[in-house]
Amino acid sequence: MRVLGIDPGLRTLGWGIIESRGSRLSHVANGVCQSQPGDLGARLLSLHTQLWQVLTDYAPQGAAVEQTFVNKDGAGTLKLGQARGIAMLVPAQFGLNVGEYAPNTVKKCVVGVGHADKEQVGHMVRMQLPGADPATPDAADALAIAICHAFHLQSSAALSRAVEVGR
Amino acid sequence: MRVLGIDPGLRTLGWGIIESRGSRLSHVANGVCQSQPGDLGARLLSLHTQLWQVLTDYAPQGAAVEQTFVNKDGAGTLKLGQARGIAMLVPAQFGLNVGEYAPNTVKKCVVGVGHADKEQVGHMVRMQLPGADPATPDAADALAIAICHAFHLQSSAALSRAVEVGR
Repeated sequence: MRVLGIDPGLRTLGWGIIESRGSRLSHVANGVCQSQPGDLGARLLSLHTQLWQVLTDYAPQGAAVEQTFVNKDGAGTLKLGQARGIAMLVPAQFGLNVGEYAPNTVKKCVVGVGHADKEQVGHMVRMQLPGADPATPDAADALAIAICHAFHLQSSAALSRAVEVGR
Repeated sequence: MRVLGIDPGLRTLGWGIIESRGSRLSHVANGVCQSQPGDLGARLLSLHTQLWQVLTDYAPQGAAVEQTFVNKDGAGTLKLGQARGIAMLVPAQFGLNVGEYAPNTVKKCVVGVGHADKEQVGHMVRMQLPGADPATPDAADALAIAICHAFHLQSSAALSRAVEVGR
């Protein structure tokens, strides 16, 4: 199963795609969508177009977006919210259910602890996805989100099978 | 010129369309796009689909979205931001520049003072757009945003003409 992870942001939106077969994960691609400061409508349109291309190129069957950290800066939260709206919309336009994971959940899943820093996340992503060389820390985070979602989907599927067998 | 105003929200997104000819304004249509609580991706997709239909049906040549009030509730700001991202995106997808106006600017423009309440806004919208009967307060706000944008576009155009004549 091919899974897309997205780390949303208005200036830089990281994305990462992995393939999961049973418990084996492999790297497919990663990158960032970027928008330059200026007219907000044009920036959101640019992010939408770039992210649409990623889904067209790689046709993921699952997607997840990081749950944004809500900070004390209302204007910053609003900007991030607008970018996150696009990050949630595009996979939904491709017919995918979009998972959401808090940053701590992603770190616990990939590194084993919830307070890991960006370097640790990047290191573990490279360990778990041989050959992956994330373009930026945002792309590494996006791959971590994809890993977290792939594990979650696997355990859900295993649970369903166990329930079926138990009947 | 046909102008669309949008009052963004995740549960209810108000929209209003007016026609401006010189200084004369007339009402075209108004309504709300709604999404029921549940999966966020599905909600944003639903708002996108409904708003897309409004632009398809009425083909506005100008659009503006209210600048969201950033409050102390980070989670609420984030939700609103996500809905606002869709409200900004759709007109941009139709090739429109999207204007942004603070709530106080809209009120000053339509009522004459920046601290008017919703009832006053609704009353003045009905006065300025004979025959308009806004579906909800959100739709009335959206019509007020459209009025504000139409005035702004007119005065910009008048200024350009004055500059041309003065050359």
